[in-house]
Amino acid sequence: MPEPISIEELQLAVRNHGMPLEALRYPVTPLGLHYLLSHYDIPAVDPVSWRLTIDGLVSRPLELTLHQLHARAATEYVVTMECAGNGRARLSPRAFSQPWLDEAVGTARWRGASLAALLEEAAPREGVVELVFSGVDRGTEEGVEQVYQRSLPLAEALRDDVLLAYQVNGQPLPPQHGFPLRLIVPGWYGMTNVKWLSRITAVDTPFEGHQQASAYRLRQREDEEGIPLDRMLPRALMVPPGVPSFPTRERTVSAGRQVLVGRAWSGFAAIAQVRVSTDGGLTWLPAELERDADSPWAWTRWELPWKARRGQAVLLCRATDASGNEQPLEPRWNLGGYANNAVQRVPVTVVE
Amino acid sequence: MPEPISIEELQLAVRNHGMPLEALRYPVTPLGLHYLLSHYDIPAVDPVSWRLTIDGLVSRPLELTLHQLHARAATEYVVTMECAGNGRARLSPRAFSQPWLDEAVGTARWRGASLAALLEEAAPREGVVELVFSGVDRGTEEGVEQVYQRSLPLAEALRDDVLLAYQVNGQPLPPQHGFPLRLIVPGWYGMTNVKWLSRITAVDTPFEGHQQASAYRLRQREDEEGIPLDRMLPRALMVPPGVPSFPTRERTVSAGRQVLVGRAWSGFAAIAQVRVSTDGGLTWLPAELERDADSPWAWTRWELPWKARRGQAVLLCRATDASGNEQPLEPRWNLGGYANNAVQRVPVTVVE
Repeated sequence: MPEPISIEELQLAVRNHGMPLEALRYPVTPLGLHYLLSHYDIPAVDPVSWRLTIDGLVSRPLELTLHQLHARAATEYVVTMECAGNGRARLSPRAFSQPWLDEAVGTARWRGASLAALLEEAAPREGVVELVFSGVDRGTEEGVEQVYQRSLPLAEALRDDVLLAYQVNGQPLPPQHGFPLRLIVPGWYGMTNVKWLSRITAVDTPFEGHQQASAYRLRQREDEEGIPLDRMLPRALMVPPGVPSFPTRERTVSAGRQVLVGRAWSGFAAIAQVRVSTDGGLTWLPAELERDADSPWAWTRWELPWKARRGQAVLLCRATDASGNEQPLEPRWNLGGYANNAVQRVPVTVVE
Repeated sequence: MPEPISIEELQLAVRNHGMPLEALRYPVTPLGLHYLLSHYDIPAVDPVSWRLTIDGLVSRPLELTLHQLHARAATEYVVTMECAGNGRARLSPRAFSQPWLDEAVGTARWRGASLAALLEEAAPREGVVELVFSGVDRGTEEGVEQVYQRSLPLAEALRDDVLLAYQVNGQPLPPQHGFPLRLIVPGWYGMTNVKWLSRITAVDTPFEGHQQASAYRLRQREDEEGIPLDRMLPRALMVPPGVPSFPTRERTVSAGRQVLVGRAWSGFAAIAQVRVSTDGGLTWLPAELERDADSPWAWTRWELPWKARRGQAVLLCRATDASGNEQPLEPRWNLGGYANNAVQRVPVTVVE
């Protein structure tokens, strides 16, 4: 069982929020239920004076108004997005950051302009290796004031499904999702999808900013360089069945026929299999998968009938993707508390 | 300093969420930023088969479709709503429930049908003292499975500003705010505003359900009957100035002229005064208030210029309403951790 949560962690937990897992019932997460993590404060951006600057090592630097971005060809993708810190609060000892349990995920329909088309226009010069994306949100990291910045390798930025999104679920971006513009890189963890985007800079050396070189790396020790996080590891989650108690959230399920339902995703490949255990992991059964062929970046629905018998049960679900990545049964510890995709465990009491 | 938070409390904190305080900048809180507390799971309601039943001691019981409710005369109010448990995590010892700090508030534009008009049609009989409002959300409290239920005295239910709301901020209610219908009682704490409403029952004795007789009462000891909570006590909050650090959220402010800005509200009367201290409570200055005359149930904006000088400062704000209710400087403890409206304290470091 993890250690108690500090008040500093609670400050983060009451501002930010996960997706209540019953919302796994929706193929597209309703606004307000999608997980949300703002590193700093949500900034107020004036859409009239706001500009997107594309600069650095490009032949034709661009400065675009929101109106100009809206006027371009628009594309739309349904994208499952998960925080790289999902599962952090189940690791011990635990990194001091947003204390997620399992809920830091959501799926939204993002609409915007193609990044590749804009880059073609700006024409990155020979030697460009990365693009640096800067938000307008300001904060202090290890004593240094900065805006939020992340980079992407050029090849990744040129994917035809990378968006500069100005709409979510058919509405203008709300402030908390990055109004007026955010980057959407399907398949990558949430920190990639820079909110309140105002600048894209082409560079010829790897970006060494805080969110790239210090945060969001898998490390066992502080003095390691570490492995940068990018694509989401596979994970399956279930709608916890039955009825919760308040405030413990212990769950009671009626004996008899139940259908366990959930969703699974991976940033590496399609979900190949979800296996479910209703006996604490002793035996496993394959769930039925229902893919949405039109939405390759959206999670895959799964379900499995379950004949619930009176007593205690621990339910587990475990995803494997088509690249052969499988969720571990136990958390894999790392210093920053990232990418803990250990299987979800849902204890329930079955009553007649 | 409060005790560490348990994992059970964290389960609640990652599902539910407060309003990040920088969102005090908006007169009407954007969807997704309004505070949210669901006691049980967010239910899936089919709007086609859903009905609102008005029954019990009424002369003409009603059963209404959503379409029929939409067809009635609609009214709209901008309403500030706060959870009765706001401030709970600043009490010690702390009740086991949702661990709010200061953020459990929001203001929304609710649109719906007048409850009074519907009640006139149903015609409560002689002797009716309360109306019981039942949601469809199910949960277990102290081992007893139930739906969420709260009652209102008849006189309160007949106020002409009490709504059965089906829209918020110009949109259909999202699932988490009670789709397809919720009660809105301006001025009362959040638990009053029953979500996923499906039944209104007129009764001739006070309702003794869990959320009325056990929860939401001010008690010092378990064996007390306690005082039921209803109207929101006054509270002022400020947009924390400057720039936050991640993950501590410690704040740095630039020396020189700043303007402290916030909002204040009370369920008892208009806000009469907000006083602000920038020296930890030694001296206080009255803030300038800006009321929205068209929205008597919405919070009141306040601001105060501040000449920030290098060093540490603790900023406080303190509201008084026109009924003479004033925020206390220190929390007033009670068993359930309710109605802690002690003044907000924002420590900042001012730098050149």
